[in-house]
Amino acid sequence: MDFPLPSGFRLSVAAAGFKNHGRPDLALAFSDTPAVAAGMFTSNLFKAAPVRVGQDILGAGRKVRAVVINTGQANACTGEEGLANCLLTQELVATATGVLPNEILPASTGVIGTQLRMDAWRKAVPLLRDNLGKASLKEFAAAIMTTDAFPKYSGCRIQLAQGAVTLAAAAKGAGMICPNMATMLSVVLCDAAVPPEAWREMFARLARRTFNRVTVDGDTSTNDTLYGLANGASGVSPTNGADWSALEQSLETILANLAYMLVRDGEGATKVVHIRVTGAQNDDQAEQVARTVGHSQLVKTAMYGKDANWGRIVAAVGRSGVPLDPSLVRIGLCGVEVFKNERPTPLDFDALLKEPLEKRDVPVEISLGDGPGEYALLASDLTHEYVNINADYRS
Amino acid sequence: MDFPLPSGFRLSVAAAGFKNHGRPDLALAFSDTPAVAAGMFTSNLFKAAPVRVGQDILGAGRKVRAVVINTGQANACTGEEGLANCLLTQELVATATGVLPNEILPASTGVIGTQLRMDAWRKAVPLLRDNLGKASLKEFAAAIMTTDAFPKYSGCRIQLAQGAVTLAAAAKGAGMICPNMATMLSVVLCDAAVPPEAWREMFARLARRTFNRVTVDGDTSTNDTLYGLANGASGVSPTNGADWSALEQSLETILANLAYMLVRDGEGATKVVHIRVTGAQNDDQAEQVARTVGHSQLVKTAMYGKDANWGRIVAAVGRSGVPLDPSLVRIGLCGVEVFKNERPTPLDFDALLKEPLEKRDVPVEISLGDGPGEYALLASDLTHEYVNINADYRS
Repeated sequence: MDFPLPSGFRLSVAAAGFKNHGRPDLALAFSDTPAVAAGMFTSNLFKAAPVRVGQDILGAGRKVRAVVINTGQANACTGEEGLANCLLTQELVATATGVLPNEILPASTGVIGTQLRMDAWRKAVPLLRDNLGKASLKEFAAAIMTTDAFPKYSGCRIQLAQGAVTLAAAAKGAGMICPNMATMLSVVLCDAAVPPEAWREMFARLARRTFNRVTVDGDTSTNDTLYGLANGASGVSPTNGADWSALEQSLETILANLAYMLVRDGEGATKVVHIRVTGAQNDDQAEQVARTVGHSQLVKTAMYGKDANWGRIVAAVGRSGVPLDPSLVRIGLCGVEVFKNERPTPLDFDALLKEPLEKRDVPVEISLGDGPGEYALLASDLTHEYVNINADYRS
Repeated sequence: MDFPLPSGFRLSVAAAGFKNHGRPDLALAFSDTPAVAAGMFTSNLFKAAPVRVGQDILGAGRKVRAVVINTGQANACTGEEGLANCLLTQELVATATGVLPNEILPASTGVIGTQLRMDAWRKAVPLLRDNLGKASLKEFAAAIMTTDAFPKYSGCRIQLAQGAVTLAAAAKGAGMICPNMATMLSVVLCDAAVPPEAWREMFARLARRTFNRVTVDGDTSTNDTLYGLANGASGVSPTNGADWSALEQSLETILANLAYMLVRDGEGATKVVHIRVTGAQNDDQAEQVARTVGHSQLVKTAMYGKDANWGRIVAAVGRSGVPLDPSLVRIGLCGVEVFKNERPTPLDFDALLKEPLEKRDVPVEISLGDGPGEYALLASDLTHEYVNINADYRS
């Protein structure tokens, strides 16, 4: 299955040899006309060179023509030489495609602390130009994979008042960190004609509701990047509230799909735990409880073990640091109320939950009281395979 | 190896049948005279019945005669019935030993959400009384074990101006949470004659420096308890600053020993990671960085994999939320400086660190700059066996 590309965008991939698997490891998304751009970046204070360069471009508010992504090397913790190399990759791609260097948004993922192999870049960029328009969205998504088990992409076509617009997006990520080559990167392409400010605000809002609500291991990479390009090539603008609402809903659906895929493909993960906290005093407190539960090693191993272990959820809620009245806390697991009034409910959890806990998706509902605050978080489980992947990475 | 008990204390253990292993699972530490008592308890908002009862006794500032500890059942999330049962266990022990119920400090560890088996208590308490004085410190420590791989106990004799005093202590804990029966409990006995306030302040201060500076999985049990009893039976009081300093240093050594044992025996752990953060703006920020590194699944799996993975430490420092200047951050691993000036140092880490990373104890030194703030934390690694223990617990 694949999705149609938005008008005026062409994709390309090339095997540059950054990784030794012989498959494509360099990818380019190119817009035939200048595109409005939005970007969200890692909050880690150690920011990779491409993150700094991307932030500069977006900070200047200029339109862009392309996103270029390499795997194999993250270009993080590489100092001034790394920054210079990143600028050089922009120049190579700009020269090959006839645009300006600062119209190229860069992103990298891979091992940190080593310099980009510029010789391989020089050889591969002409190939990348020659391949423009030949890669499908799926091939683009496959080229940016690192520890990912499957390519992650999504798309849709929406009818607005003036006509149809198309959205297409790809993402990579399985853990959240280098140097295990598992940074989260994502690119969204859209052919709607949109005002830059509105596009960026919508992007930031939706990223908070989707990508920022998933956790595999609680770690944050030096390279995490989300780019959104809208080139207007469809000739269609959102003209009213209904149009914007349709666009926003579709974009949210796509980002949520990709975010779900990141958790589903979490390193070694067998479960997607859907944690929903309601009744908190405010959303921040709901988030704090959700993240404490979602990051709890004991909850994550229980999920892996298909264990109706309400006690570990209760204990995580109680240590979250959020002031709450224990007597009001209610917990549901796969739709079964397992805890209220400070005690387990008198049900045979093992019998009731045996089958639901076999499934990939496990809902955990936590009510803290009758406040208005709520939060939803997707979390992976913690498995033998996670330890395999991360303990056996180099040794 | 065992340690001598302080004067005026007698220990006892009994096999009550709370657990089906046939070994002792009920333990009593008894003072022949009223003892000054200190206590530290879990910060989890879901507090077990014995924690609430213990807090009441210590809150009232009264002297105590005994600590009784059962394994097998945590008496947490058991409601009013659980509280009533806890008071009943005090009564049983008090009646058998001829003291008052509110002179008995209770502690429980085990599965949560089920009521204490009072029939087994009634049968076992007379046995516990008959065995008074027959158990060694090691036997006491063995009786309170749950998932622990070995009994944890320590002790020493110190010479003060007036004469010698003796300290003895036992602890249990391997993970940090029920219902995996892995609560941290500890009891310290001392025969010095001490003013209650000074004893309690010293205890609180030292617990912060020892037990509160270890992490296995970042989870906090509903039952964590640390009791310290000083009965004055040696007839020796600390009379000057040197005496207090000697007592405090010895007590800190004992608590630090036990804390180290908890991490060493962390569920499935093969490593004790000694994280030391210096140069922070203040101690709180140093602690935040240390805990982010110590809780990072990726750092913990790298330690298990004997992997000189400086990048994961850097990434954890960078996402800790502490405002810092990345260019000042320096990181050492087993005495080798692996990172400074935002880049890895030009050393052959794999060769230099191969042997040191084989050892059980792994020092991680993190300098954030030239500020006065510092913090030390002991952390376990994350292993296949951890996942075995915690995923296979019930299913």
